[in-house]
Amino acid sequence: MTLEIDGEIDVAVHRHVEVLLRRYLAQRRGELPELAQTFAAAVDTLSDFALRGGKRIRPTFAWWGWRAAGGEGTGPRAEAVLTAVSALELIQTCALVHDDLMDASELRRGKPTVHVRFTEAHRAGGWLGEPERFGMAAAILLGDIALAWADDMFTGAPLSDEMRRAAREPWLTMRSEMFAGQYLDVLAQAEGDESEDRPFGVARLKTAAYTVERPLHMGVALAGAGQDTVDAVRTFGTDIGIAFQLRDDLLGMYGDTEVTGKPVGDDLREGKRTLLVSLGLRYADEAGRHADAEHLRGTLGDPELTRETIDRVRELLVQVGAVDELERRIERLTTSGLAALETSGLTEPGRTRLADLAIAATRRDR
Amino acid sequence: MTLEIDGEIDVAVHRHVEVLLRRYLAQRRGELPELAQTFAAAVDTLSDFALRGGKRIRPTFAWWGWRAAGGEGTGPRAEAVLTAVSALELIQTCALVHDDLMDASELRRGKPTVHVRFTEAHRAGGWLGEPERFGMAAAILLGDIALAWADDMFTGAPLSDEMRRAAREPWLTMRSEMFAGQYLDVLAQAEGDESEDRPFGVARLKTAAYTVERPLHMGVALAGAGQDTVDAVRTFGTDIGIAFQLRDDLLGMYGDTEVTGKPVGDDLREGKRTLLVSLGLRYADEAGRHADAEHLRGTLGDPELTRETIDRVRELLVQVGAVDELERRIERLTTSGLAALETSGLTEPGRTRLADLAIAATRRDR
Repeated sequence: MTLEIDGEIDVAVHRHVEVLLRRYLAQRRGELPELAQTFAAAVDTLSDFALRGGKRIRPTFAWWGWRAAGGEGTGPRAEAVLTAVSALELIQTCALVHDDLMDASELRRGKPTVHVRFTEAHRAGGWLGEPERFGMAAAILLGDIALAWADDMFTGAPLSDEMRRAAREPWLTMRSEMFAGQYLDVLAQAEGDESEDRPFGVARLKTAAYTVERPLHMGVALAGAGQDTVDAVRTFGTDIGIAFQLRDDLLGMYGDTEVTGKPVGDDLREGKRTLLVSLGLRYADEAGRHADAEHLRGTLGDPELTRETIDRVRELLVQVGAVDELERRIERLTTSGLAALETSGLTEPGRTRLADLAIAATRRDR
Repeated sequence: MTLEIDGEIDVAVHRHVEVLLRRYLAQRRGELPELAQTFAAAVDTLSDFALRGGKRIRPTFAWWGWRAAGGEGTGPRAEAVLTAVSALELIQTCALVHDDLMDASELRRGKPTVHVRFTEAHRAGGWLGEPERFGMAAAILLGDIALAWADDMFTGAPLSDEMRRAAREPWLTMRSEMFAGQYLDVLAQAEGDESEDRPFGVARLKTAAYTVERPLHMGVALAGAGQDTVDAVRTFGTDIGIAFQLRDDLLGMYGDTEVTGKPVGDDLREGKRTLLVSLGLRYADEAGRHADAEHLRGTLGDPELTRETIDRVRELLVQVGAVDELERRIERLTTSGLAALETSGLTEPGRTRLADLAIAATRRDR
């Protein structure tokens, strides 16, 4: 296997990941039996979706973990590692396709989501049954195949037995943690949970473990890192990952729609139980602003929220100190994460790149 | 690893599979982080569902493939093989949980389906949002985790490198074929496809490949079978698998509800495009019975069908010869499948058990 992009993997990790993904999806599509050509066409929609964009943040963290723990930047071993960690993007493809369906999201990165595309195809074709039901079925099955192929891509990467054994634990754990985090998120929304534990647990599992900690764990484990290094990057990954989620919560309310790609206040409309909301409710109650707390509570899960209502919530969250508290926590987590990185025994150029990634993931103008 | 049931695996394959499944699910549940205890409770529902019943037909075919190709019936290698093929049941768990959701089925084996259980929990708790949406999310995520754990169970079985390599191709192909077959099925329903090719393609991929051919392929490959044997069992598996599906179509219309576990005519209500229906439509039209064909067409996908209407369709399918034609094809496929088994070079006791399984899967009083 040789990579088709000129230059070193280090120079543009995400582009190299995309080359591998594109090639893998084309290969698996090509292996589908003649009988399954209509499914192959559906897989093209999935591939479009998977290759359309995104920062490839998970393979990028994993790659720099590998490099920082002494893994080489070129050659067959490096390419095998890049293949194994690129499989993280197929997990993410499953997660996004199924998440969009569960949240009934119509757009992702400015284009129709997968279930919407199949719903529309059904409607345009004047087919039998409910268009939404067909869209749902197609999205479920395409997410499923992405998940199955993620495992195939990971287990098919030409790693040594020792590398494969080392990467297996984070790979297994990461997937359980991700689905557990998603379920906690859905359950917290349903139960109307106002505790701070629940959004913390969701951030810990769904963002920190899945997005930063376990990809990094995989990367350093592939390079043969010892337990001390694994522990240090897990601390780094957890802290930075939670900070990343808290920044996401703030950007969802105060960010530039042009940059975030989604409307301000969408988390409120969807009834997401973020730490920002939990703190806002508690602080408002503690300040005796019970009517304001009740108003905020009433906005959660209301799909028809106006900009005025959202602005009122934005002001409230600033006034009661929830925004400041989140900023403080982000700073604290970023500092403690970077400190763990310092003690990790990781080496250059990886160490600096991981620090840069951490800062980029948590800063205001992300 | 030692199996906890006394006696030889051969004596009760499905019970040994259940022991391994139960143990594996408990182990993975136990590994979930403290933070994910609500998800662990949801996993209990999934485990109940996976362990509740079923014939474990896929691991059983795989096991007897292993035995018939010379694999031993006891000892560490046998137990590793049984673990690897038991993972097929977790694929099936994912398929059933997602299928019930796609078909909006309320019952499976006389008990509420997974999405219905979570919908009801939401309703009983008086939670926020739509109960059905919560039920859908839980079923999607639990099906996903079953699929991820299926791969983990398969790749974690302590096979030799050579065995692992040999089993990899059927494992990969089987999952793609299964999801492709499911998609073809859903698409045929939506498009109102009346061709005979489409139900044949669905039976080929969703039933034959996934249920018989690839499990058997795995079993003999694990035992180190050569290409001739693989080819022979694939022919056997394809023929028997399609015959199995055709028998299923007939039982769905003429079977004893007590035995089949589902109401007569459910395929009609769901608008399933079976070969029985395709042949019925063609033969009715060829016999000039256009009004009857139109009547049959009108029943497809009508959830309110009465017993009288279904009886009229049952009579029509007999009168125009569709039922006889299906019986002929089942007989032909069973004969050709058994003939392939004869030339396979497989040995006893596996060969006779495979023949018995084939006959049991395709006979009228199944």
